[in-house]
Amino acid sequence: MIEFNIPNPNTNLTSEIDHKIDFKTKPIGALGQLERIAKQVCQIQQTLSPELKKPSIVVFAGDHGLAKEGVSAYPQEVTHQMVLNFLAGGAAINIFSQQHGIDLKIVDAGVNFEFGENPNLINAKIGNGTKSALQESAMTEEELRQAIKKGAEIANEIHGQESNIIGFGEMGIGNTSAASLIMSHICKLPIEECVGRGTGIDDAGYQKKIEILQRVQQKHSSVSSISELLQAVGGFEIAMMTGAMLQAAANQMIVLVDGFIATSAFLCAESLNPNIIDYAIFCHQSDESGHKQMLDHLNVEPILQMHLRLGEGTGCALAMPLIQSSVDFMNKMASFESAGVSNKD
Amino acid sequence: MIEFNIPNPNTNLTSEIDHKIDFKTKPIGALGQLERIAKQVCQIQQTLSPELKKPSIVVFAGDHGLAKEGVSAYPQEVTHQMVLNFLAGGAAINIFSQQHGIDLKIVDAGVNFEFGENPNLINAKIGNGTKSALQESAMTEEELRQAIKKGAEIANEIHGQESNIIGFGEMGIGNTSAASLIMSHICKLPIEECVGRGTGIDDAGYQKKIEILQRVQQKHSSVSSISELLQAVGGFEIAMMTGAMLQAAANQMIVLVDGFIATSAFLCAESLNPNIIDYAIFCHQSDESGHKQMLDHLNVEPILQMHLRLGEGTGCALAMPLIQSSVDFMNKMASFESAGVSNKD
Repeated sequence: MIEFNIPNPNTNLTSEIDHKIDFKTKPIGALGQLERIAKQVCQIQQTLSPELKKPSIVVFAGDHGLAKEGVSAYPQEVTHQMVLNFLAGGAAINIFSQQHGIDLKIVDAGVNFEFGENPNLINAKIGNGTKSALQESAMTEEELRQAIKKGAEIANEIHGQESNIIGFGEMGIGNTSAASLIMSHICKLPIEECVGRGTGIDDAGYQKKIEILQRVQQKHSSVSSISELLQAVGGFEIAMMTGAMLQAAANQMIVLVDGFIATSAFLCAESLNPNIIDYAIFCHQSDESGHKQMLDHLNVEPILQMHLRLGEGTGCALAMPLIQSSVDFMNKMASFESAGVSNKD
Repeated sequence: MIEFNIPNPNTNLTSEIDHKIDFKTKPIGALGQLERIAKQVCQIQQTLSPELKKPSIVVFAGDHGLAKEGVSAYPQEVTHQMVLNFLAGGAAINIFSQQHGIDLKIVDAGVNFEFGENPNLINAKIGNGTKSALQESAMTEEELRQAIKKGAEIANEIHGQESNIIGFGEMGIGNTSAASLIMSHICKLPIEECVGRGTGIDDAGYQKKIEILQRVQQKHSSVSSISELLQAVGGFEIAMMTGAMLQAAANQMIVLVDGFIATSAFLCAESLNPNIIDYAIFCHQSDESGHKQMLDHLNVEPILQMHLRLGEGTGCALAMPLIQSSVDFMNKMASFESAGVSNKD
């Protein structure tokens, strides 16, 4: 596995950052989470005047062998159809990225479809979908290595384009199953507590999904490392996101984490290098059952709780203006002294 | 009391609105609260192609006689100092309004200070602060009538400037006390369940605040109508907001409700005319103790829960891009059919 060197943010500025926040014209703490985010961004950027440069969102798409075992309400071809929808600008993530001036990149991490040449698609295809984890390992050791490496390269490329904030989204029919298996292993919770309705399966489908995932766990019961876990259950897009998140933090970028599946990639990344947590902002709490427990496991509080369960990085896009608000109040709001307002006695 | 004629939104379009939302390229319900808001805005505007025109926020400022009884951590002069800060562009609400292109208006509803001529300040002063509700009624019947009427006129003026969405914020040292008294009466809860820390009083101050408000309630125990309640406890800014909210809904504008104090005005408005609820979007849940119970009383779910407790309409400003996202997905996102994506089997 590639090693990622993620520095701990320097804490030299901590008291100056706190002072600047506390002397803005508002009661102490009255801007709530915006204050926490402002402080975190200042720490990451080692400044009292933070800035969001070229906000980016990357959507990693991949297919899952497990989708053919009947774990999803939608057929596998929806993955490539939605990628085409992203490329045509018609999906929710396109609309919200456009609204906020976010540079959106779509990555073929391993979709079971040949897209041909497309200037708007980053071709990082590891294979035409993973193998079914019910039958064998979802990917080989070499495929995992390639996925992590490609993810890191994509994060480096975006960093090279002067972006300092990057959001992570995904698309892949069947990938809530992979995410549930990852969650179960890392959070040490029984699989039935980690399985939700995904894109909307019914009661019978839900029971079937649990049974299939229990059998997948039995098949791969010897898994111990994160590397073995990702190989066993996939997917390509989750592994690639893991590599991209780790490299983004190594580049001291702000790492925006979307919903259930993106958080499963973050769980892998955090297991590989716990320092990543200081760079991460959790954008929303998905309605997908289990996401709250993932966030509790990481001891983090998300910005939004709007009952979304869509993925695609939509939570990151919707949270972007709130992160911008954190930066803006830090830079532009008056202090008690500058405004001539009496402070608390 | 002035009568407000608020129409029930026509429901003729309901099934067409639902159909348009459900056939966007996403699982049913996957955009969570954004779908609920999109539907509400479509109902209010009687269209499948909603639009936010000239978003506005009005901050009503007023002083409270109760502030001199020791219910706040800050001295009364902070009200006028903060109004000057609003006019100079240095407060949190200025920063967030600027970020989102929101037209911000500041209203002197009854601040204990002479601002002189200022083109950026709407002079609607009813008096130099209310009387102390501990000693007498906060305002007279005529003052209340004037406050409601001025509020309605301000809402009409903004509507006349082609705005169709208006947020309500406030500033007034001591006004969490008035809001707690309103809440206690309307939600039929003991005052101690309605009192929080406001701008940040300590334990002793908190106990004192409860005791003072209990005495205020004893003094005005004969209050029965909303009109009597507002006269008894004030404040000018809360009464003016009540009138403005009612008139905005009568004009079929989207009414954005901010935090604890703005919601107390909404409680009065809703008691006077329950039809207003269909026009209201609750922007955030304040960390001020009691706000959650107010929202529960109204059976509504706020957009944000970010531990803010600042007022000024900041919750409305921060929620604005999310309301815009609701409108944008409705207008711009592809449908399953237009994008050639397979729907759930």
